[in-house]
Amino acid sequence: MLRTHTCGELNLSSVGKTVTLCGWLQRSRDLGGMTFIDIRDRYGITQLVFNMETNAALCEEARKLGREFVISATGQVAERSNKNPKIPTGDIEIIVDKLDILNSSKHPPFTIEDHTDGGDELRMKYRYLDLRRNPVRENLLLRHRMAIETRNYMNNIGFIEVETPVLIKSTPEGARDFVVPSRMNEGQFYALPQSPQTFKQLLMVGGIDKYFQIVKCFRDEDLRADRQPEFTQIDCEMSFVNQEDILATFEGLIKHLFAEVKEVTIDDIPRMTFADAMKYYGNDKPDIRFGMTFVEITELVKGHDFKIFDEAELVVGINATGCSGYTRKQLDALTDFVKRPQVGATGMIYLRYNEDGSLKSSVDKFYSEDELKKWATAFNARPGDLMLILAGMAINTRKALSELRLEMGARLGLRNPDVFAPLWVVDFPLLEWDDDTRRYYAMHHPFTSPKPEDIELLENEPGKVRANAYDLVINGVEIGGGSIRIHNHELQKKMFTILGFSHEDAQAQFGFLMNAFEYGAPPHGGIAFGFDRMCSLFGGSESIRDYIAFPKNNAGRDVMIDSPAPISQQQLDELHLKVDLPNCEIN
Amino acid sequence: MLRTHTCGELNLSSVGKTVTLCGWLQRSRDLGGMTFIDIRDRYGITQLVFNMETNAALCEEARKLGREFVISATGQVAERSNKNPKIPTGDIEIIVDKLDILNSSKHPPFTIEDHTDGGDELRMKYRYLDLRRNPVRENLLLRHRMAIETRNYMNNIGFIEVETPVLIKSTPEGARDFVVPSRMNEGQFYALPQSPQTFKQLLMVGGIDKYFQIVKCFRDEDLRADRQPEFTQIDCEMSFVNQEDILATFEGLIKHLFAEVKEVTIDDIPRMTFADAMKYYGNDKPDIRFGMTFVEITELVKGHDFKIFDEAELVVGINATGCSGYTRKQLDALTDFVKRPQVGATGMIYLRYNEDGSLKSSVDKFYSEDELKKWATAFNARPGDLMLILAGMAINTRKALSELRLEMGARLGLRNPDVFAPLWVVDFPLLEWDDDTRRYYAMHHPFTSPKPEDIELLENEPGKVRANAYDLVINGVEIGGGSIRIHNHELQKKMFTILGFSHEDAQAQFGFLMNAFEYGAPPHGGIAFGFDRMCSLFGGSESIRDYIAFPKNNAGRDVMIDSPAPISQQQLDELHLKVDLPNCEIN
Repeated sequence: MLRTHTCGELNLSSVGKTVTLCGWLQRSRDLGGMTFIDIRDRYGITQLVFNMETNAALCEEARKLGREFVISATGQVAERSNKNPKIPTGDIEIIVDKLDILNSSKHPPFTIEDHTDGGDELRMKYRYLDLRRNPVRENLLLRHRMAIETRNYMNNIGFIEVETPVLIKSTPEGARDFVVPSRMNEGQFYALPQSPQTFKQLLMVGGIDKYFQIVKCFRDEDLRADRQPEFTQIDCEMSFVNQEDILATFEGLIKHLFAEVKEVTIDDIPRMTFADAMKYYGNDKPDIRFGMTFVEITELVKGHDFKIFDEAELVVGINATGCSGYTRKQLDALTDFVKRPQVGATGMIYLRYNEDGSLKSSVDKFYSEDELKKWATAFNARPGDLMLILAGMAINTRKALSELRLEMGARLGLRNPDVFAPLWVVDFPLLEWDDDTRRYYAMHHPFTSPKPEDIELLENEPGKVRANAYDLVINGVEIGGGSIRIHNHELQKKMFTILGFSHEDAQAQFGFLMNAFEYGAPPHGGIAFGFDRMCSLFGGSESIRDYIAFPKNNAGRDVMIDSPAPISQQQLDELHLKVDLPNCEIN
Repeated sequence: MLRTHTCGELNLSSVGKTVTLCGWLQRSRDLGGMTFIDIRDRYGITQLVFNMETNAALCEEARKLGREFVISATGQVAERSNKNPKIPTGDIEIIVDKLDILNSSKHPPFTIEDHTDGGDELRMKYRYLDLRRNPVRENLLLRHRMAIETRNYMNNIGFIEVETPVLIKSTPEGARDFVVPSRMNEGQFYALPQSPQTFKQLLMVGGIDKYFQIVKCFRDEDLRADRQPEFTQIDCEMSFVNQEDILATFEGLIKHLFAEVKEVTIDDIPRMTFADAMKYYGNDKPDIRFGMTFVEITELVKGHDFKIFDEAELVVGINATGCSGYTRKQLDALTDFVKRPQVGATGMIYLRYNEDGSLKSSVDKFYSEDELKKWATAFNARPGDLMLILAGMAINTRKALSELRLEMGARLGLRNPDVFAPLWVVDFPLLEWDDDTRRYYAMHHPFTSPKPEDIELLENEPGKVRANAYDLVINGVEIGGGSIRIHNHELQKKMFTILGFSHEDAQAQFGFLMNAFEYGAPPHGGIAFGFDRMCSLFGGSESIRDYIAFPKNNAGRDVMIDSPAPISQQQLDELHLKVDLPNCEIN
């Protein structure tokens, strides 16, 4: 090695040793007789000292070094008179007697500090410089630890990591595939996997019994704020299991990760049905770090000539404990919040339970204090509380109230990022009706099995069939989801029929899986976790991009390498492709 | 779990317990009063017993089960009277009193046995059935163990696994890229990485210091026998190192893997220069499990009117110890071998050193016994040996003799797959001249650094410059290779010039890397191992395909899922692409 030690490991016990450090110049302070240079590497920062009196030439040389120069410095470790307790090496410094410039550096376009002056776009373009900053490097280290802990845990409980192929086949069901033209098979295309779903099921048919993989997946979607065209999953599947086995196995993984990576103990993870999640939180991924659950008062409020309530399918609210002191202005802000198009409510009713026991509402003229008391009782409210009520179509109202609940949770400091509240949401519906295409879609995917007790409903009331499907939600974020799969050939065929596949389509797209099911498929099920999202949750960040070494922007571009880019005519010719842009004439 | 135990864990200590096993019906024997069924899962095989006398109905049911049916059987563990010492569960059997058919199976297209009757194509089409066979599953288990041991070893010595992107940018230098049309960036393409080379170098610029990744790579090449369009690398890079550090670090990894996975102790790995490898083995990846090194006798044999030798640039041979008894027929077979087009020699001369001390050669009429004695001395041969000699142009002759040496090694049983002889080949040339395109190509890649002492040759004798490059060869197979990289912006620019890049081309393709080098790139280097090849070597197989769960055939097709395949017109339209096949009219 070009160094004897890293920049993060020397301390008082090393005093007197001659050492060589390599790293980047973090900052330089010229104090006349002395020059101090902080040298930085992945492991820390150490102070180098150059003395005008003892070695003027070397000191002059040191003074010429610019920020981010790469240097090698040899010298003796000495105790610092002016110690820095904030860093592990703060007790010592190196009295340098040999200095090599390993590389120079242009002045960096932003400061390499924990709090940088660089904007997002600039830092993405110079991602290799951004990586030198502690917070960015810490994120990658966290990701690495999460991955290695996951792998060792899964290995220890008998799972095998199997690599499934990246060049597979396009299946129109689901999101849009990225495709890869095949040169050797003219006019044909591979597709990049949206998940290894069918392959992991084939591994179960192949008797692998317990499979996992940390694997890249791809989705050609119009990118929302925090989506990436390539993302990473912890993908898992087990044979001869029921839903309980899967939940228990992966509850173990989650507890292990929290214990090892965050030193947080997670209690047994509670469960909630999809129906309850929608009823009490208006959301299939409730943040249960705080209560403030929904209270439905539809029947209670009807018949008092208040048209909005009388005409509403659902009247539902939350009780914000201790918020009766909210000012008019604060209440207006909340009304504005729920009326934002993303939230979509038309207005908000409040009921204030004053400290003195009196009640005040925005609809006083329709309801007597006695009536309002009944509301307060329904909300289990006490003096000092504030009830916020929305009304309208059930589905929209629940969605809007869910947003309001999260907003109130945030305002009241109930969404502490250091508190982790995982939840299993279970008993999802198997199918979702789509009014536009007038057909059912699989809520998870077409391989999810219905609950055995609901199978008889498949024929006539498919919308009522519940699935053996489950999601893991932490702090309101969906971290993973999965299901017990269909392993019966006939049931899988029926499922494709319900989803509107012709026999031919089903055969063309999933024939290999259907065929495999005819050769002794075991009962099996699994789960997949969004690894990028999981890392950002563990790291306390909202953005998955912070946990990806080289992310793409919202247009799917890597601005650092300037990709995607045009390819050569020769490449196009070899692939027998013509680019046919809308604004070009075709000749 | 649907089972209480696996099919591989019960033994005499379990006798008397009531257990439930799940698995596949391996075979069934109906002995009149009794029916025996072997039930198989990933973990082993257990014998189930059904008794006509005690439970006729159940026994009848069991007799109806076909091969590969998936069943669940509950019963009591009993000691077997007729023990099977070949399997861990051979001392016990299960007296079944409850049987559930979890799934039926069509008759499998080949037998699910260690030695199957299924041909390659059939087994590929039904890969999910092939995976049920012990040898195939063992291969995947080996691969899993190799991966997890590698990761833990690398983690323990401070390397971070960082995921680099799969959707990158096409660079015409090197092999052909697979490309991915971008829908959001019309007319532009991503490319799949042939390796994460540039990204791992950027991670070094970013101060990650020690990086590794087990990563999928892609190459759109015309597939030779044992190539796959997607393959897996153990990719590594370190900062502030010289070549010695890299060799020492990864020698550690290799020793660890052999110790943990094969229980084989590897001594310190010897080193050989590229020049010596070519001179003594005719090959830059010599199999050093055996000697039989090349002996050059060009000068010794000239001037005896034997035209072939007189005109040859090189006369070189090997000494096959103890082979003087080879018959005429055996020698002819060897001559035929070297004359095969893949080997390419025009003929072979032998010199037999008989046990009685006499010498016999195929060119006796040109050389006296005294002359032949000199040859034998040059070969260090003893009575009983056989010398095999080729002559011609140096490069072709060495290549042919290398093939002959390997053939003789195989014939003499010197290439034992249980013996592992790793070797570092070092001091590769930096550049290779190509006569067709009349330019130099980088022997490794354009980022490899020249040896500092050879840099002055770059200008005028670039072909003589040696690189800081190294390969790890085991048993004649190249397992990995790498180099110390160029970290200096100016040297990298010069290298691109020598390789015939215009400034614009270099900037367009590698501008981001060249720019990065201006901001303080540290000295760095690395290595990449072919993981598929490594697994096949550890597993004792010649074919990497055996170690890939879902491999593609030589036409790049996955015959199981029937991919690649045409995509829909809608998909093409969204990508602004037209397929333009040579045999179609363009409208």
